[in-house]
Amino acid sequence: MSSRKIIKSKYFFEEDFVESLAEVPVEKTEAWASGAELKVVGKPTQRKDGYDKVSGSAQYTFDISLPKMAFAKTLRSPHPHARILNIDVSKAKKLPGVLEIITHQNTPKIPWYFGMSFLFDTTLRFEGDEVACVAAESEHIAEQALQLIRVEYEELPFTIEAGQAMSEAAPKIHDTNILRGRPDTYERGDIEKGFAEADVVLEETFTTQTAVHNTTEPHCSVVNWDGDRLTVWDSTQGIFSVRDGIADSLGIPASHVRVIKKYMGGGFGSKLAAGKYTVMAALLAKKIGRPVKIALDRKEMNLAVGNRPDSVQKLKIGAKKDGTLTAMVHESYGASGAYPSGAACSWPFRTIYQCPNLNTIDYSVYINAGPGRPMRAPGHVQGTFGMDSIIDDMAEKIGMDPLEFRLKNYAEIDQVGNAPYTSKRLHECYQQGAAAIGWYQKRRPAGSSPGKIKKGIGMASQIWWGGGGPPAYATLKLNRDGSATVIAGTQDLGTGTYTFIAQVAAEVLEIPLDNINVILGDTGVAPYGPSSGGSTTAPSISPAVRDAAEQMKTKLISGAAAILEVPERELSYRNAVISAITDSEKKLGISDVVRQMRERVLVTTGLRNANPEGYTINSFGAQFAEVEVDIDTGKIRLLKVVAAHDVGRILNPLTSDNQFHGGIIQGIGFALMEERIMDPMTGKTLTTNLHNYKVPTVMDTPTEIEVIIVSDSDPLISNTGVKGIGEPAHIPTAAAIANAVYNAIGVRMKSLPMTPDKILHALFG
Amino acid sequence: MSSRKIIKSKYFFEEDFVESLAEVPVEKTEAWASGAELKVVGKPTQRKDGYDKVSGSAQYTFDISLPKMAFAKTLRSPHPHARILNIDVSKAKKLPGVLEIITHQNTPKIPWYFGMSFLFDTTLRFEGDEVACVAAESEHIAEQALQLIRVEYEELPFTIEAGQAMSEAAPKIHDTNILRGRPDTYERGDIEKGFAEADVVLEETFTTQTAVHNTTEPHCSVVNWDGDRLTVWDSTQGIFSVRDGIADSLGIPASHVRVIKKYMGGGFGSKLAAGKYTVMAALLAKKIGRPVKIALDRKEMNLAVGNRPDSVQKLKIGAKKDGTLTAMVHESYGASGAYPSGAACSWPFRTIYQCPNLNTIDYSVYINAGPGRPMRAPGHVQGTFGMDSIIDDMAEKIGMDPLEFRLKNYAEIDQVGNAPYTSKRLHECYQQGAAAIGWYQKRRPAGSSPGKIKKGIGMASQIWWGGGGPPAYATLKLNRDGSATVIAGTQDLGTGTYTFIAQVAAEVLEIPLDNINVILGDTGVAPYGPSSGGSTTAPSISPAVRDAAEQMKTKLISGAAAILEVPERELSYRNAVISAITDSEKKLGISDVVRQMRERVLVTTGLRNANPEGYTINSFGAQFAEVEVDIDTGKIRLLKVVAAHDVGRILNPLTSDNQFHGGIIQGIGFALMEERIMDPMTGKTLTTNLHNYKVPTVMDTPTEIEVIIVSDSDPLISNTGVKGIGEPAHIPTAAAIANAVYNAIGVRMKSLPMTPDKILHALFG
Repeated sequence: MSSRKIIKSKYFFEEDFVESLAEVPVEKTEAWASGAELKVVGKPTQRKDGYDKVSGSAQYTFDISLPKMAFAKTLRSPHPHARILNIDVSKAKKLPGVLEIITHQNTPKIPWYFGMSFLFDTTLRFEGDEVACVAAESEHIAEQALQLIRVEYEELPFTIEAGQAMSEAAPKIHDTNILRGRPDTYERGDIEKGFAEADVVLEETFTTQTAVHNTTEPHCSVVNWDGDRLTVWDSTQGIFSVRDGIADSLGIPASHVRVIKKYMGGGFGSKLAAGKYTVMAALLAKKIGRPVKIALDRKEMNLAVGNRPDSVQKLKIGAKKDGTLTAMVHESYGASGAYPSGAACSWPFRTIYQCPNLNTIDYSVYINAGPGRPMRAPGHVQGTFGMDSIIDDMAEKIGMDPLEFRLKNYAEIDQVGNAPYTSKRLHECYQQGAAAIGWYQKRRPAGSSPGKIKKGIGMASQIWWGGGGPPAYATLKLNRDGSATVIAGTQDLGTGTYTFIAQVAAEVLEIPLDNINVILGDTGVAPYGPSSGGSTTAPSISPAVRDAAEQMKTKLISGAAAILEVPERELSYRNAVISAITDSEKKLGISDVVRQMRERVLVTTGLRNANPEGYTINSFGAQFAEVEVDIDTGKIRLLKVVAAHDVGRILNPLTSDNQFHGGIIQGIGFALMEERIMDPMTGKTLTTNLHNYKVPTVMDTPTEIEVIIVSDSDPLISNTGVKGIGEPAHIPTAAAIANAVYNAIGVRMKSLPMTPDKILHALFG
Repeated sequence: MSSRKIIKSKYFFEEDFVESLAEVPVEKTEAWASGAELKVVGKPTQRKDGYDKVSGSAQYTFDISLPKMAFAKTLRSPHPHARILNIDVSKAKKLPGVLEIITHQNTPKIPWYFGMSFLFDTTLRFEGDEVACVAAESEHIAEQALQLIRVEYEELPFTIEAGQAMSEAAPKIHDTNILRGRPDTYERGDIEKGFAEADVVLEETFTTQTAVHNTTEPHCSVVNWDGDRLTVWDSTQGIFSVRDGIADSLGIPASHVRVIKKYMGGGFGSKLAAGKYTVMAALLAKKIGRPVKIALDRKEMNLAVGNRPDSVQKLKIGAKKDGTLTAMVHESYGASGAYPSGAACSWPFRTIYQCPNLNTIDYSVYINAGPGRPMRAPGHVQGTFGMDSIIDDMAEKIGMDPLEFRLKNYAEIDQVGNAPYTSKRLHECYQQGAAAIGWYQKRRPAGSSPGKIKKGIGMASQIWWGGGGPPAYATLKLNRDGSATVIAGTQDLGTGTYTFIAQVAAEVLEIPLDNINVILGDTGVAPYGPSSGGSTTAPSISPAVRDAAEQMKTKLISGAAAILEVPERELSYRNAVISAITDSEKKLGISDVVRQMRERVLVTTGLRNANPEGYTINSFGAQFAEVEVDIDTGKIRLLKVVAAHDVGRILNPLTSDNQFHGGIIQGIGFALMEERIMDPMTGKTLTTNLHNYKVPTVMDTPTEIEVIIVSDSDPLISNTGVKGIGEPAHIPTAAAIANAVYNAIGVRMKSLPMTPDKILHALFG
């Protein structure tokens, strides 16, 4: 395809781009739909927030400081399961500098965890469950006060492993230890008939570990009451979701809560909802009549604010000798933690490969550990590891190249919704990714690599939701000096939202990027934008921005028509100058149009169009990994990762590359090292800091990462054709590495993370 | 008229109003146009900002404090006219705590005063003109540093009186001392023919003094740079105007300047534009890399940030014996101060009374004093004093009651624009005002009051612009809990904007006032709203709010129609519940509509409709004053003031009453005591604090103020029919008092303020 764009991961800064804008020939707006190159959108563009972040002037929630601000710290359960018999705060209250202490004794019973508990519950269901919260003149005093609170606990029997928790004999955390009392199930076709048709049937069990988000910036809120109105600075992925959660909890109108987030240091799904800490801070602030800051420490982040549930996946698949999949069964369970959180992981299994006969059963199980939360593609990372591992094994079994096997079972339509895709270019991901990694040149039979440093190549597929989510709005203000401001109710997680919004507005209005200011992350003043989860930020907000800009262009042309006394249809808009097509002397810059309309500012509000009916919107991709395994040490080193994706339009290759790199590196962490470890004797978590919970460092990154985007735009889904990249970048990495490791050493690793001890054990028993 | 509302000035708080809302029968939205009573709008409503202001938590610009904030103070010219030969800041810079000093030597030449000067000019044209600005660790250190700056001045000859400045011999402040080199002129009809037709011709000269705004809150800015973006907290009446002024001065895009104003302590016209102090603070902040606060002291406020120009008005009018005005001539001059500012005051003269033959000539004259700025009805207060004085004298001369004389010369149409008024109810103002003051019962012949405490009654008319100004937008967000937020780019000067915006939204959506939050005064995030000048705040923003709310209602009804499967036309909206007209079981609260639409927030943006073409929009009124004059002391005491006005719809009688009271009291100040006095020997201002510049206190307020609104709505001008009240409240007060004083003592006071010495001099020579 001539419109295909291939973007390498080399960063390049086109500083002169804005200046050269005036020289670029104008294209019609239909360019958006045709996949033709645009002038600003799709070009590598430096971050709008770059200066702030590099200079250190960027204000994160953690940096907010208000006059008279007090500091809060939380007392948390030291036991995995216990009942509070008594709390005595008298000694703590006497500590100089302590301002207030709240517990279940002096606060309303505020429902939490979908009504299964309270803000302060007297039953504590995991190590880290909230017991009390102290406000003091300093964080240090608040911490000291925690030591002085005397709590009498009745310890209860606990269970911290999902398989054990499902048994009859296990201690019950709620009425039943199974979320909603039953598994999530799905089936299509005739599973028995499917296996009967198979020439080969494989049954294998794969396990993945519990991972913790461990964002760079801690969970943090600063709260301030102004009469009956509450302002909350919060490190969050969903300002409106947090606002509504706080309003519900406090029983005040949503209009009286204002949530502000300018910059943040990562969320990955752990900052989508209002935190207990935020509500506790608000209660304390109300009581003491002062602003309150609360920031979790690394231990609290590892205990209490979410994780990716583990999984045990029993898989069974059948195929004919020609490679046709005839039947697939996925049965899994995973730990929700102590409160509701879905642990299902069968979605990729249901959708990405063509298979007419299929069953899935997913159990989400309560255990005495911190509750799960969505983490970068919930369910998909675990599920893709299991699925793409057994798919590789089946290909091996029937003597077929794994890539050929996947192409043989390519799903042309959405098998669950029975609907066509708005677009699917997974084919091209396979082809281009394979070419980039040297699939057919370099790949050798499994375990055939000579010497002690064994090389291997593997791959995996990716499917994810994409294309929008709920409505999003954007307001555009065009000033009479020709500069513009865009205000939207979305938030920038650090991924580049500020920048691509300016790009979209600049593309339509043809004004320099530097003259566009973007204001995000303030529920008080922004029109509504959805939470930044599910990779929906760009797909939801970019169409609203384009709509607002197109409306503005229409308004300007209409204004110019009246001033120039030329019909609108006889005017052209080029480089922010409107001129008569037939008389080039008759022209006005947009700044002059605004002035001559006697306006100071023109305003438009754009809306994202609804998703098209009758279609399924998904993003697709394939990642390829080349690894070295040192069979003396068991250590795995990544030589190269190729990420080839169909994610609709790329708005900014620079930040898109960043996000792919980040997703892949986080995938390496999940594949090789990240793991929450709990002590079965005490029920306590052992990995509560970044020394014990290992995340990848620069030493663990691949020698080379190559990002290939096979898609240009998906005009069916929106006026910008963006599908979203946050989660797709991360989904298949671990599975691709596992397949590469198998290719290197000839032994299947069925359990993540693939730590050196597991490799050595697999090789030498 | 049955729809007429008479609102007495008694304050009443209907605390139970919101709760009783549900019981009030629903009326159709046409009620807005019919003049029928609405449910929330037009009802006395407590201020949304009441708690903040009473509790002291309200944050004014003066209260803003940022981390690491520095403080700035300005060195000002001690001479009325001088040239700077040299500035030596070396000693000042050495003072510990001094951070930076800017002068003309180290700053760009930023044009100021319409290009007639610079931010720092080397020619100083009034006492108070800016010479240097110091940033320091504290305000005190900055003040000390000012003393250490050594400036070598060349003193120049000066002129501080407009009449003298117009003479050939006067020192020239610019190329000519006449603004634009010529007077403003207007004429209609044949003035000579008009005087020939007259039976009586009167010629008199009236003078008014220079007044200073002297707001409660000083002029103040806090500025903070975030990279190349500037945030300015400013005490201003025009956030967008200030923003554009700063951007122009600094040469940065308007989109990079954010101006914020939440609450303010008065403007009266002196805070409409960007101040030099703001730009100086921004330059200092940039240099030192820290936020800077600058607040003027009372002396600076009295010297450098505006005043109402004085006036000398030579009037000549002719009338027939039957009272018909046949010709009028107004010739005036007034002092602009050292830089351009219009001092014309003939507008009321041109418009309010019917007269076919009329000439006006207004000179605005440069003198060596601080420049004028608009002050609560520029030109009208001065002009109305002259006009309504001579009108009274003419009535006396031909033996006619002054009120009858005015009715005789009632202007049915706009004589300047030759267009009908959208509405004019001045007739009813005269009638109801006269009834309330007891005009026909109490009024006696001039000077006939017995004893030493002489009573008198007088009146004057008022005309003012009204109805809107430039476009205004409002964004409405309806949350899924049924609460709402309105965001608008206007600002609340303390007059009640927060409250009436909530009222308008509550009226349309029928939700409790307390569930509506209003956010104003932030150029970054609000859609555009015009400056709050010319009494246009309510007329410009209320229609935009109503439009946004009506759009929201339409959206909700459309959503409900889809959910309930009932056509929209068969649905009714009542008390925020949408129900099927034919099946009352089918109904949904708006909160449920939002939820079932699967929306978290619905957003609409409303726009004020354009003014109707072919009409003139003016507000009208008449004020009546009853005074006592003590002829022993010359002191005037106000017994009662009646303000009867046609100002379109009143949105909130409580805050409207407040504003009428304030306008009248400020009118008393102008009539009796306020005056800037300059020393002719030194050219310096003698009245630079509130001890010397006397503003009225509670002791000077009338025993009784009665406010009568004769208008209900003006549906021709907008969907809310509001004309505006800020300036109308103030325009005729001084003139009405002057006529009452004449009626009391039988001697015409031709010069304001009517201080005791002038009264005694007029009585006893």
